[in-house]
Amino acid sequence: MPYPLYPFVKPYLMTRGLQPENQETPIQFIKTDTIDYQLFYRRNHFAYPGLSYSNYWLPINGLVKTAKCFSLQDILRLPSKTLKVVLECAGNKRSLFEPKVFGEQWEKGAISQGYWKGVPLRTLLELAGMKEGAKEVVVEGYDYGRRTDLDTVHTYARSLPIYKAIHPDTIIAYEYNNRPIPFKHGYPLRLIVPQWYAMASVKWIKQISVIDSDFTGPFQSVDYVYYPHKENDEGAFPVTTIKVNSTIQKPLNMEVLNTGKHIIEGIAWTGKGNITKVEVSTNGGKTWTEAKVSQQNKEGYAWSAWKFEWSVAAKGEYTLMAKATNSYNQEQPATPFWNRKGYGYNAIEKIKVKIE
Amino acid sequence: MPYPLYPFVKPYLMTRGLQPENQETPIQFIKTDTIDYQLFYRRNHFAYPGLSYSNYWLPINGLVKTAKCFSLQDILRLPSKTLKVVLECAGNKRSLFEPKVFGEQWEKGAISQGYWKGVPLRTLLELAGMKEGAKEVVVEGYDYGRRTDLDTVHTYARSLPIYKAIHPDTIIAYEYNNRPIPFKHGYPLRLIVPQWYAMASVKWIKQISVIDSDFTGPFQSVDYVYYPHKENDEGAFPVTTIKVNSTIQKPLNMEVLNTGKHIIEGIAWTGKGNITKVEVSTNGGKTWTEAKVSQQNKEGYAWSAWKFEWSVAAKGEYTLMAKATNSYNQEQPATPFWNRKGYGYNAIEKIKVKIE
Repeated sequence: MPYPLYPFVKPYLMTRGLQPENQETPIQFIKTDTIDYQLFYRRNHFAYPGLSYSNYWLPINGLVKTAKCFSLQDILRLPSKTLKVVLECAGNKRSLFEPKVFGEQWEKGAISQGYWKGVPLRTLLELAGMKEGAKEVVVEGYDYGRRTDLDTVHTYARSLPIYKAIHPDTIIAYEYNNRPIPFKHGYPLRLIVPQWYAMASVKWIKQISVIDSDFTGPFQSVDYVYYPHKENDEGAFPVTTIKVNSTIQKPLNMEVLNTGKHIIEGIAWTGKGNITKVEVSTNGGKTWTEAKVSQQNKEGYAWSAWKFEWSVAAKGEYTLMAKATNSYNQEQPATPFWNRKGYGYNAIEKIKVKIE
Repeated sequence: MPYPLYPFVKPYLMTRGLQPENQETPIQFIKTDTIDYQLFYRRNHFAYPGLSYSNYWLPINGLVKTAKCFSLQDILRLPSKTLKVVLECAGNKRSLFEPKVFGEQWEKGAISQGYWKGVPLRTLLELAGMKEGAKEVVVEGYDYGRRTDLDTVHTYARSLPIYKAIHPDTIIAYEYNNRPIPFKHGYPLRLIVPQWYAMASVKWIKQISVIDSDFTGPFQSVDYVYYPHKENDEGAFPVTTIKVNSTIQKPLNMEVLNTGKHIIEGIAWTGKGNITKVEVSTNGGKTWTEAKVSQQNKEGYAWSAWKFEWSVAAKGEYTLMAKATNSYNQEQPATPFWNRKGYGYNAIEKIKVKIE
């Protein structure tokens, strides 16, 4: 009997690309509060780096009073904190933009969350001592390669303004869900920037540099910029804070269901503030009813799960919608903010089902 | 050092549903000639059945001279053949229809192929002896459940007209790629009907019945029927033979590439006849050039891989297209045959890329 009588049925990462590896979380099929690392979405700009763990050091340099070089042991000895943080790719839901935009065609699963443990970046900056004139903190990863639009080789590097770098919850993480960070997610050290899209959360940290100017690396000045126009760069501005957003996990888009009771469920999240309300419409937006939001996260760094019981007697086609609101009274817009590179899609979540 | 220095990057099945399990092959990322069973697409109508292997018998009954009941050992002792056969879900590419249709939103991966070994159904029918008046052969699986549109419980069952049932290449298979058929793909016995969409290739065979009328089970008379109209059933006709079709595997839709040389590659397949030609257009269909078709399958039951070298110097947006033709001079149409349940999508394959 070579096969189990009742085979295990499980979802997998959804492959978007392999060179470099880009795979999204099957978010519609995962109802747990944290994502196992094996199903955590993978978003890479380059091939995985080959770094030497056995001789790993973290330098902090630039505009500091004392340049430092921390060993992993040094980092582990410093006071730590553990935060439940959602990481969302700035390109999550890119495939929903109309007109379509180029780039990885992420559906709704370039988002995952779990518990990250680490040392505040602030602590390291205090140990090194920032000099006057410090404007940004650049975090560089070990991953590097050639871009399609430039002929030079670049490492993946991003900067944070000082106020965000010294925020006590911006951490240099070394654990995910109580285990060392998996290699594909940044082992041994990954920057975690709560509230910002995940391009800021640099993996495989190589060095930290304090600078007195605006960082102009291509992942700061070319990518991860909102370009409102197709043909020119007018009105461009950087991608930073995660927008208020939601996803319906169940039912699935274009699913066929029975008449009767159905549970509509999903998640909602926001960079600024907390989720205060999720409203659901089962008639294409004519009327809205509040869903039951079951999990409120104190810091607001994690998503909130929500449910809505729907009783439907009449056969036919229905448009189901979800709209999240945060504590700054920001809500998902009816139409997305189209931008050339396809970042920050957060229009009202919408699916169709057929009742028969 | 808990993680490998250069982690293995691999594609996974793309999850469309888990109850029942429906997952598609990451076809864009697989360039091998046969699909490993772990990446073979899974399409189920119901939960996996609980069948007893230790006491497995295959009955053949109905309009036969001698009703039979074969043990697995009986089947294994009969003369067998091994065929390379593509199985394609009738709903493959359903997500591409406009207007959208309800049902599983398959992209381009509800298709897989490999070597199936088994005994011709014809052999079993000859051993039982069909009586005069025999019109169809019904093959019933062990899987069963409730449908959304009917209140009764049904097993999954399909019929074949006699000419197709006695075709020497319609086989009762017990091996896939030289191993017992994996449970999820029909262990211990699965009907394999080359040239037809895979709804005909019934898994977990429970019994075979010869009948003197048209079989009217719901998977024959409700599903797997082309309904050309949204609001009525006029002009309906059954889904049978696989249409001539092709898929571009590389590059990916909406991918951003460099100027220079690129290999466009993919697969082409057909139910009737063989693939005789694959043409590629890199200018949205204005001009077409023949691709190099590297694999021709004698019986025409398998797909043909093809490649096309594209040199591109000018930056900009390009629409890449592929069009397959078979030996009956059927070619992929410019527009798909829209039908309410979304079967048999085979319009000219089309993707967009950006050169920068």
